Amino acid sequence: MVGEIAAEQNWSAVELDQADPLAQVRQGFELPEDLIYLDGNSLGPLPKAVPDAMARVIRAEWGAALIKSWNDHDWINLPSRVGEKIARLIGAAPGQVICTDSVSVNLFKVLAAALQLGRRPAKILSEVDNFPSDLYLVEGITALLGPDAPVFEVVQADALIDQLDTSVSIVLLTQVNFKTGAMHDLADLTARAHAVGALVIWDLSHSTGVVDLDLDAAKVDFAIGCGYKFLNGGPGAPAYVYVASRHQQRVSQPLSGWMGHAQPFDFSPNYQPAEGVKRFLSGTPAILSMTALNAALTVFGGLDLRQVRAKSEKLGAYLIHLVDNVEGDLELISPRDSRLRGSQVSFRHPLAYAIVQALIEVGVVGDFRAPDILRLGFNPLFNSFADIQRAVQSLAMILITERHLEARFSARKFVT
Amino acid sequence: MVGEIAAEQNWSAVELDQADPLAQVRQGFELPEDLIYLDGNSLGPLPKAVPDAMARVIRAEWGAALIKSWNDHDWINLPSRVGEKIARLIGAAPGQVICTDSVSVNLFKVLAAALQLGRRPAKILSEVDNFPSDLYLVEGITALLGPDAPVFEVVQADALIDQLDTSVSIVLLTQVNFKTGAMHDLADLTARAHAVGALVIWDLSHSTGVVDLDLDAAKVDFAIGCGYKFLNGGPGAPAYVYVASRHQQRVSQPLSGWMGHAQPFDFSPNYQPAEGVKRFLSGTPAILSMTALNAALTVFGGLDLRQVRAKSEKLGAYLIHLVDNVEGDLELISPRDSRLRGSQVSFRHPLAYAIVQALIEVGVVGDFRAPDILRLGFNPLFNSFADIQRAVQSLAMILITERHLEARFSARKFVT
Repeated sequence: MVGEIAAEQNWSAVELDQADPLAQVRQGFELPEDLIYLDGNSLGPLPKAVPDAMARVIRAEWGAALIKSWNDHDWINLPSRVGEKIARLIGAAPGQVICTDSVSVNLFKVLAAALQLGRRPAKILSEVDNFPSDLYLVEGITALLGPDAPVFEVVQADALIDQLDTSVSIVLLTQVNFKTGAMHDLADLTARAHAVGALVIWDLSHSTGVVDLDLDAAKVDFAIGCGYKFLNGGPGAPAYVYVASRHQQRVSQPLSGWMGHAQPFDFSPNYQPAEGVKRFLSGTPAILSMTALNAALTVFGGLDLRQVRAKSEKLGAYLIHLVDNVEGDLELISPRDSRLRGSQVSFRHPLAYAIVQALIEVGVVGDFRAPDILRLGFNPLFNSFADIQRAVQSLAMILITERHLEARFSARKFVT
Repeated sequence: MVGEIAAEQNWSAVELDQADPLAQVRQGFELPEDLIYLDGNSLGPLPKAVPDAMARVIRAEWGAALIKSWNDHDWINLPSRVGEKIARLIGAAPGQVICTDSVSVNLFKVLAAALQLGRRPAKILSEVDNFPSDLYLVEGITALLGPDAPVFEVVQADALIDQLDTSVSIVLLTQVNFKTGAMHDLADLTARAHAVGALVIWDLSHSTGVVDLDLDAAKVDFAIGCGYKFLNGGPGAPAYVYVASRHQQRVSQPLSGWMGHAQPFDFSPNYQPAEGVKRFLSGTPAILSMTALNAALTVFGGLDLRQVRAKSEKLGAYLIHLVDNVEGDLELISPRDSRLRGSQVSFRHPLAYAIVQALIEVGVVGDFRAPDILRLGFNPLFNSFADIQRAVQSLAMILITERHLEARFSARKFVT
């Protein structure tokens, strides 16, 4: 892929965009004019289908039909309906994905389920550079379980395979590293984990919607993922849980709220988990936020994720190719090989924070990750090769003119 | 109160409404014309402030400002801002309430916190008629903790005081019974729990917004409550957590996601809980759903909850007074004494399901609770005495004409 793009270096972004079979998908988004948005991996932009769907759920469903909407507008099955839309994007046969709660809360559920199912004594293996919140959740469940807690070991990514032995009962990994964009080989690591008798939990927050996943083929045990990044479901959109069919009836989860009960409206005093993945529901679902995600997912209707992934690889290769010719101290920390990279490219620079601010001022939104990382994420559904070209031109201009050294860019404030 | 209303039995609903200082608050809601909505305790109706607020967060914040909205539109503090609005309604000084997740998930957090703080061996005392989901959550944490699990004892409401001895470390109760509307004396039971060295967790889902609560004065330890019932925050609105200031720095909670971290955007590999009640946050908050609740809470601006409570008692007394004169087999299962009752009145009837359906057909929405309960909830913010009068007239008409025996009302389907 890198070679292919290098050979194409005389191609203009215009030509690359003309050859892009997904170019029209961008029409499904409300994007501010003249903004190059390379932060869809932090918060996906607004799909055009969302405002009408939200007006409808607010006015016609909540406002007019009120409580009847649980039946008449099928709110009660919204977590399953959204789950099935996501299932198609991650290679999951029906009945294994449900939309609910946040990634963090869902991770807790699947950790508990995996501990219940997995070998004893329990040992969870993860990566030191995993998304920190995932590590915090393991800390949380470990502290709660006290003497019965699993051993928790975090290692560098390149030591994972060495450390994966029969002492490990659960492997918890995020497929795409949030800082570097480095992507694990999900199928290979899953097979290796299974070979030593361990279960896998994959956090697919930075993969879902841009990587052509096939969880069933890889025999993944559990997965969780985010609704507001590449799925464009809106700020704090509900997350999802994948639980392989073969495990569902053998596990429960401790956040056993009424929506995961077999008969929630019988109000029986004892918990009886619902059949299948529904038992991973907990409290009442956030219907408004979930409606936005449901509408956002219509953008994926008919898309082939392999095509999306191919464009993602190409956008990244093109970006790296262009930055290779930019003067400055940018150090590429993402893999050059597109097959090893998610849908982002990251650079280290001592003044990364100021550069990100200077880029925003000229209409290029990427993001900063402490302490010194400039992260440019791209979503093939709306980003064009022209976006990449203009972003790199802006970056080059800033570095050449030393615009990022101007005082107004140095005051660090909260950046998501 | 009952006597007072009885003496007023010649008063018309018109006169009662004319004397109602809260009559104008109803203007803050979008209510379908000619609908008598007595189910605001299941799903509050749409406040007029919501659609504009939602259009703004979708178009101007998510759509136009995108990721910058975490700063520029202060999404990052939305859980605290909404929490403080709720705090005023429950008698909590600032810094003790935060809006997050669902009631079920929040109950898990405070159960874990209370177990951490409470005496050992741990024993949780609750009521057999507590909201079932609360009992399910205790089952969930108990199953997870295995040998280290607390003893869990559920007793009839009238046995609570007898069973409350020094073996109990945590008392978990819902203030207002979801079926009967019977209301516990929160201050008295909290004091009795403290007298034997136990902590209290109150579920205020059926109280918040209609009962003049004073959690600080009662020295409550932990509380949780619902956003979509009397707070009118929309279907599946986020819930809240109250943690008394005196406990906050001494407890953690196991759903330790990044939003509860002291410095979430440092992405440090170890969890360091935020100061104060913020440590009860977990994953990324559902900004869209929370924005609806935030807008809904503006209805409470300037209202005195004592006035709301007084009207609630009066609506209930009026309803009971009117039903006393209705022919039929309706058995009042709510307390007659308004001081012992939340904002609902329930009746038992062998054909309660059919009656609820027949009422809906004539534009009176109450709800059914299995196996035989007709539940009429009222919210003083939008229900009038005329609503009560018309609802009871419809009920009387149905029973007298035996309309509820018509076949179309008998097929039981899902009812929330």
